[in-house]
Amino acid sequence: MQQTFQFRAIGFVQSPYKKKFGTPRQPGLVAGTIGHIQLCEDLNPDAFDGLAEYSHAWIVFAFHANESFKSGKPFNKTKVHPPRLEGKAIGVFASRSPHRPNPIGLSLVKIEKVEGRTLTVSGLDLIDGTPILDIKPYLPSIEAIGEAREGWSAKIDSPNFQVSWSETAKSDVLALTPHLTDQSRQTIFDAIENIVKLDPRPVAYRGTAENPDPYMSRYGFRFEDWNVVFQMKPISADMKGEPKREAEIVSIEKWPT
Amino acid sequence: MQQTFQFRAIGFVQSPYKKKFGTPRQPGLVAGTIGHIQLCEDLNPDAFDGLAEYSHAWIVFAFHANESFKSGKPFNKTKVHPPRLEGKAIGVFASRSPHRPNPIGLSLVKIEKVEGRTLTVSGLDLIDGTPILDIKPYLPSIEAIGEAREGWSAKIDSPNFQVSWSETAKSDVLALTPHLTDQSRQTIFDAIENIVKLDPRPVAYRGTAENPDPYMSRYGFRFEDWNVVFQMKPISADMKGEPKREAEIVSIEKWPT
Repeated sequence: MQQTFQFRAIGFVQSPYKKKFGTPRQPGLVAGTIGHIQLCEDLNPDAFDGLAEYSHAWIVFAFHANESFKSGKPFNKTKVHPPRLEGKAIGVFASRSPHRPNPIGLSLVKIEKVEGRTLTVSGLDLIDGTPILDIKPYLPSIEAIGEAREGWSAKIDSPNFQVSWSETAKSDVLALTPHLTDQSRQTIFDAIENIVKLDPRPVAYRGTAENPDPYMSRYGFRFEDWNVVFQMKPISADMKGEPKREAEIVSIEKWPT
Repeated sequence: MQQTFQFRAIGFVQSPYKKKFGTPRQPGLVAGTIGHIQLCEDLNPDAFDGLAEYSHAWIVFAFHANESFKSGKPFNKTKVHPPRLEGKAIGVFASRSPHRPNPIGLSLVKIEKVEGRTLTVSGLDLIDGTPILDIKPYLPSIEAIGEAREGWSAKIDSPNFQVSWSETAKSDVLALTPHLTDQSRQTIFDAIENIVKLDPRPVAYRGTAENPDPYMSRYGFRFEDWNVVFQMKPISADMKGEPKREAEIVSIEKWPT
């Protein structure tokens, strides 16, 4: 029986998040971000015919930025350490961790536009250059199981971060909204804060208990036509000794056009 | 940039559906069928720790029974012909067809039991021996998008087959339910008929317009502790000239224990 399989990239992700400082590549995309999938030149773009009729699609991709993947060595660890499980390990197949025997990722995105070889999506949580293995339509009649039971991730995937603003970020909002009343501006502060509170980082990139921020990255998401950059703070303990997750909004700039 | 990727089987499917008559292998599993995924010996079974807390899981697998896959030749066709589109072709990435540039499949299953290296699931639509590439928990909070829009598959994925019973199948029900009243027995006839009406075959195996039953298989599904075997009839036209899809319930046996 065949034990190994060779697959090809059918396309690559184009995203506003490029690698910074060379390596390691950064997983910078968060829910809400617009990204593009560029189909490889040897594939006819009619491969996308009919896809725009669907609102959502599955993206099957390779976690190419993994150190273990780049090393080319087999990865046979079977336990991973998700965040906020207080050091407890969980089976790799009970997790969406990028560190898995086959570094294959699965991401649900919203289809925005299909144009030639370019598929534009939102909610793409992949970094620039991610190789795509497959694209499949999302079938809500089969795959939307609202009553499904969620395991440990349900307990930890409703974060409620404490959010702070850097002085820079505060001035950025003022500079970007010169004509707004204080009250209107406050709704913007609140909206951004609420997004960060819920941790817009994709589940797959939320790190492990030992290493809650594995990429030590700043993450950006698009809000209106701005790029909101935030960063996790090291985990501290709250007054009851429970771990406290804090994020800082670092800066807000015009979205690059 | 790396263009090809090598992945390994992390396990294999065990199912009551074995290949018949040698080759080609048959995709015999349908929704409701119990199947097992047997983890490879070199992976620690703690890889499953925590998975039983979830009700559903994604199975990422290789369509190993594809002729194109077995030939080892690159498959770069970009249009496929789904059933009941009256010969119209659709982009491969707007379909769940097994015939795709990377023959990677994605199946949502219900988790029944985790025991050692064996993951028991229901709804598994894979044939015996299918190599598994990955298992991931289903995250309803992110992945159950009931309001998602479904494209062409929504139009064709609500079949309403005409269903007929073979004489054998009728006698099978009588023989299996000697103590039932006629009325109770009728509810069983009705229930089985309703399952078949909706085409319990997995979407990926429903064939193409030219070839609506590519595997010319009998399909079985589990109902109570019986194995209900049915088969598609060749497409005929109804009185209006519309294609008429008919299925016959062939036989009903005790489920092998």
